[in-house]
Amino acid sequence: MSDFPLPRADLPTPALLLDVAAMDRNIAAMADYARSKGLALRPHAKTHKSGEIARRQIAAGAVGICCAKLGEAEALAADGVGDIHLTSPVVTKGGIARLTALAGKIRLSAVADHPDVVRALAGSGVTVFVDVDPGKHRTGVTSPEAAVALARAIVAAGLTLGGVQYYCGSEQHITTFADRHAAIVGKTDYLRTVLAALETAGFAIPVVTGAGTGTFAIDAELGVLTELQVGSYIFLDREYRDCELAGPRFEQALWVDSTVVSANTPGMVTIDAGLKSFATDAGVPVPMSGTARYAFMGDEQGALIGEDLPGLAERATLVPPHCDPTVNLYDRYHLVDGDTVTGSWPVTARGRST
Amino acid sequence: MSDFPLPRADLPTPALLLDVAAMDRNIAAMADYARSKGLALRPHAKTHKSGEIARRQIAAGAVGICCAKLGEAEALAADGVGDIHLTSPVVTKGGIARLTALAGKIRLSAVADHPDVVRALAGSGVTVFVDVDPGKHRTGVTSPEAAVALARAIVAAGLTLGGVQYYCGSEQHITTFADRHAAIVGKTDYLRTVLAALETAGFAIPVVTGAGTGTFAIDAELGVLTELQVGSYIFLDREYRDCELAGPRFEQALWVDSTVVSANTPGMVTIDAGLKSFATDAGVPVPMSGTARYAFMGDEQGALIGEDLPGLAERATLVPPHCDPTVNLYDRYHLVDGDTVTGSWPVTARGRST
Repeated sequence: MSDFPLPRADLPTPALLLDVAAMDRNIAAMADYARSKGLALRPHAKTHKSGEIARRQIAAGAVGICCAKLGEAEALAADGVGDIHLTSPVVTKGGIARLTALAGKIRLSAVADHPDVVRALAGSGVTVFVDVDPGKHRTGVTSPEAAVALARAIVAAGLTLGGVQYYCGSEQHITTFADRHAAIVGKTDYLRTVLAALETAGFAIPVVTGAGTGTFAIDAELGVLTELQVGSYIFLDREYRDCELAGPRFEQALWVDSTVVSANTPGMVTIDAGLKSFATDAGVPVPMSGTARYAFMGDEQGALIGEDLPGLAERATLVPPHCDPTVNLYDRYHLVDGDTVTGSWPVTARGRST
Repeated sequence: MSDFPLPRADLPTPALLLDVAAMDRNIAAMADYARSKGLALRPHAKTHKSGEIARRQIAAGAVGICCAKLGEAEALAADGVGDIHLTSPVVTKGGIARLTALAGKIRLSAVADHPDVVRALAGSGVTVFVDVDPGKHRTGVTSPEAAVALARAIVAAGLTLGGVQYYCGSEQHITTFADRHAAIVGKTDYLRTVLAALETAGFAIPVVTGAGTGTFAIDAELGVLTELQVGSYIFLDREYRDCELAGPRFEQALWVDSTVVSANTPGMVTIDAGLKSFATDAGVPVPMSGTARYAFMGDEQGALIGEDLPGLAERATLVPPHCDPTVNLYDRYHLVDGDTVTGSWPVTARGRST
């Protein structure tokens, strides 16, 4: 499928489609917002895993990007990205050797949440952030005292203390804005306690990094974070469409195109996009238009159920339920401009290890 | 990671691990079983998407393989597989052109469930099966009369009628054997009605293809299917481990290896395998050994919760909840023999379109 432009109706399905113009407007809107609030923007590339998109985010004003896995950072560094913050701890001897090698090539920071790991990072040349657990118990130190101890370990190991990471993952998708706001106010009170303990212990904290698409406007209002790690805003998805978001308006820029492969049962048709075409952790996709609802029907298929259904061999366009793990299912983005596929980009860092 | 052998503890995680010796025993056990029952074996390659594994299945006695997507069939044909049955309808003009091209290269059969599609297949050189809906309403004709009409359309189009496909997808994972047996007895009664209608109308049905890992022994006992499309038996997974299977015993041959990246909360550790490392449509993975339970903790992480937990930077091995869509997340199988990684195979047909 290398001959572009191609009519969208001729693209084999299931296919991941990206409206680059809409994505670029989302990128610009977030960059303008961060600038207007005096915040650094460091978008999370775990959403898109694409060097092309990372470079567009940086060109629009981002200070760099975040990666979730060392393998992603290696792939995007090889694809021309020069400033990466790794948001998950790298803890093995082999991983730290790779991290050290990567720090010789680009501006690289990473997080730690255990003094043993900090000691193993000595001499790596990596700037280290104290990862603070907001109560999800996924990663991070779990008390102000542990944050201070970790900062001491970082300095004692001869490493540069980059700041604090505080990512409230569980709060991003709280549906109503008022509930999400209240949750982040409470989480930020705790963050202030941690930062005060670090300050009392004599540590300067140049960067406090965190936030996501669901909370960045609340974090900006509260004024404790200095850097935003937002990811999903470039694409949106059904989950975020169901949330009352604050801040700039973003547009849906990512879809899956599918084809009706069977239409023998009244009130439903079967399309060629199932468990292998959509991440299933966040419910079902929704058709971009019309009133039909989607149901998973197995690995390769789903059903559209309702009244205004496409016919056999016709197309259906769906909004993914959760963008990050849906992108992770595809090798390429197909770029669309209306009914034309204008090209494709690889999902560069797909399938990489930690 | 091209230098093998490699100690398993040095393989970057998350990684998809395959015990080739166990898989080969599973392949041989199913081939022996089908032979002993006088049934043709045509394993479903949507499980593994691998030319290497397909060739091993054929070498052990399979008549060919099944694919779910045209793109899979193209990739596996290019990887040396010479006999493929496509189990999902191909309905678009572009798809039928590709199908026709592929039929010029290998022995190829496909299914249809609509006369318009059959007419479009005229001249393709593809052997066509009547796809019969067992009541799931995913694909297939929905009555004996419609099956006869479709068989007439196939012959009228000058195509070879390959037989009937009847795949009871919803019944594969019924947990208790007695309930699954009763369900398949009922479904097979309907299949007999369809086959009788076709016979009355003068059609010879050389092949009746269907079955999966949950029902093949029941189908063999009932004696209506002539060919088994089993897929998951080569790997197994947590879903099939939870089912009372009949027939030969299979071994778990597929795992995901992960690393503990955080261990700050009593009674739990965080590992580097989450929503992007396991399909989430069938519940949670389970540790290969020990009593800990797994919980998803986001795109890149999960938690092990319990008492006998690995320590920071140590490994955890998990049995995937559902093998097919989990394999679909990885670019490569890493081949293990105990604590050694002996090599790797590509997941050749990953990410292909219909």
